[in-house]
Amino acid sequence: MTPPSWSKLLRPQPGPVDLAAIDTRGTPGFTGDKTAGREALLELEPTIADLQERLYAHGRSGGERRLLLVLQGMDTSGKGGTMRKAVGLMDPQGVSIKAFGRPTAAEKRRGFLWRIRQALPAAGRLGVFDRSQYEDVLAARVRRLTTPAVIERRYDAINEFEKELVDSGCVVVKVMLHISRDEQKARLAERLDNPEKHWKYNPGDIDDRKLWDEFQHAYEIALERCNTDVAPWHVVPADRKWYRNLAVAHLLIEHLRDLGLDWPPADFDVEAERARLDGS
Amino acid sequence: MTPPSWSKLLRPQPGPVDLAAIDTRGTPGFTGDKTAGREALLELEPTIADLQERLYAHGRSGGERRLLLVLQGMDTSGKGGTMRKAVGLMDPQGVSIKAFGRPTAAEKRRGFLWRIRQALPAAGRLGVFDRSQYEDVLAARVRRLTTPAVIERRYDAINEFEKELVDSGCVVVKVMLHISRDEQKARLAERLDNPEKHWKYNPGDIDDRKLWDEFQHAYEIALERCNTDVAPWHVVPADRKWYRNLAVAHLLIEHLRDLGLDWPPADFDVEAERARLDGS
Repeated sequence: MTPPSWSKLLRPQPGPVDLAAIDTRGTPGFTGDKTAGREALLELEPTIADLQERLYAHGRSGGERRLLLVLQGMDTSGKGGTMRKAVGLMDPQGVSIKAFGRPTAAEKRRGFLWRIRQALPAAGRLGVFDRSQYEDVLAARVRRLTTPAVIERRYDAINEFEKELVDSGCVVVKVMLHISRDEQKARLAERLDNPEKHWKYNPGDIDDRKLWDEFQHAYEIALERCNTDVAPWHVVPADRKWYRNLAVAHLLIEHLRDLGLDWPPADFDVEAERARLDGS
Repeated sequence: MTPPSWSKLLRPQPGPVDLAAIDTRGTPGFTGDKTAGREALLELEPTIADLQERLYAHGRSGGERRLLLVLQGMDTSGKGGTMRKAVGLMDPQGVSIKAFGRPTAAEKRRGFLWRIRQALPAAGRLGVFDRSQYEDVLAARVRRLTTPAVIERRYDAINEFEKELVDSGCVVVKVMLHISRDEQKARLAERLDNPEKHWKYNPGDIDDRKLWDEFQHAYEIALERCNTDVAPWHVVPADRKWYRNLAVAHLLIEHLRDLGLDWPPADFDVEAERARLDGS
């Protein structure tokens, strides 16, 4: 029996997306509990390490393939935890993480994709975007940072950008971490209750909770408009942290495996080098 | 009983350094075997994670402290493995790794420290240099890439640069991974014997083996001239990979712990926020 494809399982159907219909506590593709899920994640480490090293070797040998993981989600949805636990399984030499905050004036002047292009991963690397070009159709839409006409054009601009990126050899894995409004409340309460987590708490997050429905709606539009075959979206139920980590690790593995990378062949005469080494 | 200080144990005495007198198979500070050493490394993970998160939180809250790990060593000494296994214990969000190859013409024009300054870690981060400013007194000296007078001035320039760096809040941890010539031969043979490792093999490494003694001598001079109290050198015996990883992890922990960072206090009214959250 072939294992299920996590990509297929987690990709929304073409057409309108109803986030409320996707269970934030669901565990599609996995039937075990938390303990089993954590163990399953750790068991993926050798596989992910092997696949990542092949990609790295490929890049070091002149190959152009690379992978970009786009992480989006509401505040407290666990982008940081995903990077720590799922991306953290990988060799840090092959990973570059870029977090996007509000664009500066200089960045805005250059168009919203400029800073995104600046941060794209090099050949052989996994790039991780903690927020991304999608903020320009999410936060920008909800907070009315620009006109509706501009927002409208951005969906197409993103699709074209991502197509160009994929054509150039970069695999794009887009993940929305999907949590419930109640789970967000519980996580914010935890940050308030634990003085070791006060630094993570931002009073602005409460203001944003009032915009919850608007943000969900903005996500639904982006999930519909930019769910292309070359760069599909994935919605990962994220109320259960262990499932979130496991699902993202599986998505990375599937996409790395699809690259079908062999170890680069020697570009030197192995026997001759062996003789030189013996005599050295 | 206080545990031994790994920094003190691994720092060469002031004055001339004799690398041949430092056992590359030694395990100073640790009496166990390979299995025990590997377990000891994994047991450090919660400690290193806690300390790193404090540093990260400090940076996110306006603090200026940061840490730079400088990794130097002969080819195959295990810089990559150290990053994978010791640095890999950390949250990748807080780590930035920079590998330095031969400087480009544009870099040379700007002075040898320019590209080093460009790559320094941001506040709250661990920066790792895979090779560093020291190549400009190691490779540059052995390969006679510049005049002896220029090389001579660089030791002082490095010391001044590192002092300025430390004064600005950056802890500098300099590590030379010390392997034997025979161990290097065995590791190169392994790369030739295993087709999965051919991509790591570089015929130029055999040419460099002829310069082994000159490189060791260049290291000895750098280890003597730049072994300052503000930014001391550490020589880590590296023939045993497990010991190398364990020693570097301990060096990181000691220096992170010395920062004495508390969790940043709340910059908001906790009770008021709790009430706002309840009503949201």
